[in-house]
Amino acid sequence: MAKFVTIGERIHCISPVIREAMNTMTPDPILKRAEEQLNAGAVYLDVNIGPAESNGPELMQWAVKLIQERFDNVPLALDTANRKAIEAGIQVYNRSKGKPIVNSADAGDRIENIDLAAANDAIVLALCSAEGVPGGVDERQAYCMEMLERGMEKGMDAAEDMWFDPLFLVIKGMQDKQTDILETIRWFSEQGFKSTGGLSNVSNGMPKNIRPIMDSVMLAMCIDAGLTSAIVNPNDQRLMETVKSCDIIKNETLFADSYLEL
Amino acid sequence: MAKFVTIGERIHCISPVIREAMNTMTPDPILKRAEEQLNAGAVYLDVNIGPAESNGPELMQWAVKLIQERFDNVPLALDTANRKAIEAGIQVYNRSKGKPIVNSADAGDRIENIDLAAANDAIVLALCSAEGVPGGVDERQAYCMEMLERGMEKGMDAAEDMWFDPLFLVIKGMQDKQTDILETIRWFSEQGFKSTGGLSNVSNGMPKNIRPIMDSVMLAMCIDAGLTSAIVNPNDQRLMETVKSCDIIKNETLFADSYLEL
Repeated sequence: MAKFVTIGERIHCISPVIREAMNTMTPDPILKRAEEQLNAGAVYLDVNIGPAESNGPELMQWAVKLIQERFDNVPLALDTANRKAIEAGIQVYNRSKGKPIVNSADAGDRIENIDLAAANDAIVLALCSAEGVPGGVDERQAYCMEMLERGMEKGMDAAEDMWFDPLFLVIKGMQDKQTDILETIRWFSEQGFKSTGGLSNVSNGMPKNIRPIMDSVMLAMCIDAGLTSAIVNPNDQRLMETVKSCDIIKNETLFADSYLEL
Repeated sequence: MAKFVTIGERIHCISPVIREAMNTMTPDPILKRAEEQLNAGAVYLDVNIGPAESNGPELMQWAVKLIQERFDNVPLALDTANRKAIEAGIQVYNRSKGKPIVNSADAGDRIENIDLAAANDAIVLALCSAEGVPGGVDERQAYCMEMLERGMEKGMDAAEDMWFDPLFLVIKGMQDKQTDILETIRWFSEQGFKSTGGLSNVSNGMPKNIRPIMDSVMLAMCIDAGLTSAIVNPNDQRLMETVKSCDIIKNETLFADSYLEL
């Protein structure tokens, strides 16, 4: 057991401010978001540069160095469909605070990202899906085993470095599938596997004031089920209160009246 | 599966206002608290009259009739160490909205409250403890099985009418025991048993602003583990948001953007 690992999601090219900063290689907006997330208690930061077809390797190297040099080699998840950009990012990545995360592999077209992680002694986020939404718990388990085998063949320490993603689904539209997610996470945990995923999918399309409530409750349930990490907005205060309280309940950090400020 | 059952805890003689109202048989303070809890979404209301050694039967009958007549026969948990008072309360209790809950039996001195519930076709809250704090999950399971046998001998429908209480413990002082609670609840659920308990024990002694946070997170984790009911303060908004969100995630109520107001 260990403390829950939050991966901050806010350095993402889908945000106009970040996209512009990446297009022009302007440090400040990226550093600002990194700082906000670290101050709120994020452990890893995700760096999503999008497809980055023209200058992926150059852009990822720039971003990795920029963020790690400013923030004491904070560990990063390298998030792009451009494999060469991930490889380039790993070349300049400083491991002193944790291995890089390859975001992400799946059991379909992106299965080779497992090889990439194995070859570079990285962690891989392994999405239990091939194309579209998996049919249920069984299908997720089958994809998980497929990816696990691939990782082990390639020499990965699967229990440590393969973080399986059950594929969180939107409640509005797939409400009856949420218990599949919880059951899959419980199964990961029983196998001794680590797990992570894009939690905020669950509240997609809900009113703004409801999203932190739904995300927090889902996260507490998932952590009970055995989830070991999630990709989240660490600047959602209610969500981080939940993460910290779960760590107390699971006895991963010692309670103090000030635990929410730590 | 079914929606989570909240039992409102605020009609309790430990409150000076309620104690005074019970001493003088003054309806208003009791009706006010009943209404506040029902408006907030409580399903059952607990009526704790304390030891009530002198006038227990009379007091419980008065309280049961008072509350049920005003609030459309709301179902009640009859909470006192005075067995004659529980029996008297059941005599005047209207079952149209649900059986009465006998609060509570345990595997020690109070085991005969199981017989009382069986003889009166009531639900019994069965605390998995004999004296003091049980040693761990195994000891809770042993007490549970003891009480289960007793209930079945007496003809109870154990799966429906015995609600097992894992005995929630205070985090400040027993932080390393919290996972025992979650594990016990998971075991109840695997056996097909219903469960409940005094949730707010976990945050006893914590700063006031932290208690709703800790209680809510613990409750979400417990509901994931399979808890089917809890004795709570339904006027804790964060807690009730959590209950309603869990019901959505477990697909017990259909999501609507307005679900928190329902």
